[in-house]
Amino acid sequence: MRFTSTTSSDGVTEQFFTLDEIPGVLWTPDGASGTRPLILLGHGGRQHKTAPGTVARARRYAAEGFAVVAIDAPHHGDRPQSEEFGRIAAALRAGTAAGEDPGALVADMHGHLAGRAVADWRAVLTAVQRLDRVGAGPVGYCGLSMGCGLGIPLLVAEPRIRAAVLGLLGVHGLAEDAARITVPVRFVVQWDDRLVPRDQSLALYDALASPEKTLYANPGNHGDVPSFELDDSLRFFTRHLG
Amino acid sequence: MRFTSTTSSDGVTEQFFTLDEIPGVLWTPDGASGTRPLILLGHGGRQHKTAPGTVARARRYAAEGFAVVAIDAPHHGDRPQSEEFGRIAAALRAGTAAGEDPGALVADMHGHLAGRAVADWRAVLTAVQRLDRVGAGPVGYCGLSMGCGLGIPLLVAEPRIRAAVLGLLGVHGLAEDAARITVPVRFVVQWDDRLVPRDQSLALYDALASPEKTLYANPGNHGDVPSFELDDSLRFFTRHLG
Repeated sequence: MRFTSTTSSDGVTEQFFTLDEIPGVLWTPDGASGTRPLILLGHGGRQHKTAPGTVARARRYAAEGFAVVAIDAPHHGDRPQSEEFGRIAAALRAGTAAGEDPGALVADMHGHLAGRAVADWRAVLTAVQRLDRVGAGPVGYCGLSMGCGLGIPLLVAEPRIRAAVLGLLGVHGLAEDAARITVPVRFVVQWDDRLVPRDQSLALYDALASPEKTLYANPGNHGDVPSFELDDSLRFFTRHLG
Repeated sequence: MRFTSTTSSDGVTEQFFTLDEIPGVLWTPDGASGTRPLILLGHGGRQHKTAPGTVARARRYAAEGFAVVAIDAPHHGDRPQSEEFGRIAAALRAGTAAGEDPGALVADMHGHLAGRAVADWRAVLTAVQRLDRVGAGPVGYCGLSMGCGLGIPLLVAEPRIRAAVLGLLGVHGLAEDAARITVPVRFVVQWDDRLVPRDQSLALYDALASPEKTLYANPGNHGDVPSFELDDSLRFFTRHLG
């Protein structure tokens, strides 16, 4: 794990790193020392580890004492994009533009990324928890949209993750994995999501095996998650990891 | 307004009162003085102003600085029950036992109570806000199940109420009133509610005109609202009234 830059503002230290091929960012409270809960942040499709929503969420969690890490998903951000991935992404864009239900195309894309993404996250989790200022504390995952599509297989593979914020995604291709998830989940739905049909979204919530799972829906389209969701998710993580 | 008893425990003062024919309870932080936000608590059907869930919620809110008031709904608790109400209640119990969809019967009962209940709440709100330790601060309403059925017409009639926690009820008889509500709402749903069909519950959420409305659903039957809902609703009221 190699740190390439460190900056600090508003009480939060932000450090860019690479682990093998994986570019990432770690946020911790300024002067942090000792073990603390860690939150993994998975970004959305066509976004990257420092997309504004990801950074705002990371800084908010870190300001409350959490360590937070985000990485670029395979073929996203600072990572090379393969021709094959380019074709899959183009097919998704074309299908969506043509008014097709994108559920199956989205599931194809996530399926193409999931194996690599899960291995990346597991390696990053191990490396980050070796740092003195993070340590082997409780771990949460937060990912919406593509971050949910890659997060669900991660939760199945990774017993160190104890709680998750998921959502903005339908059930296509995920029902079996969802039925193996038992950690507490907050599941975010946008009630008027034009990218994810409501019934597919509710079906993914239904498929989760977690005894504690809260469906948290608000009016508006895919990108309109209200800012107070961030505060509410912080309380969720504090309750389960704090 | 006549206070009939005052007790204090765990930092919260509990005072029973009557206002004309209406029996009620007021909770305030010990030693409270000056204006503070006020929450009106509407209890569920066949319950009363000191049902355990109502008292627990009231004490939690008051411990955070709110004034909280609960009253017995018409024909509930310490209030006389008319023969006509007895017949309506018996019809509801018989219909539910016979496996009928109780939506229409529940709406009949709430419709029978709503006129009186709304007038009671408005009088109590005015009287309580005249107390120095409450004052004319911002007001919220929290009522689930029957507390929602009586709360929706109250919200339509009462512009002093600025935010509400509602839910555990279907749309029967309430669509028109719901479409006149514009204050922020948290709408509580139990995903496996055997008393309120899910689609009727989601239809009532849909019918609310509030630009800010969060659907908050958890697994389990009508009475299984998880304890963390109370903490989350406290944050909602703090955000809007605090």
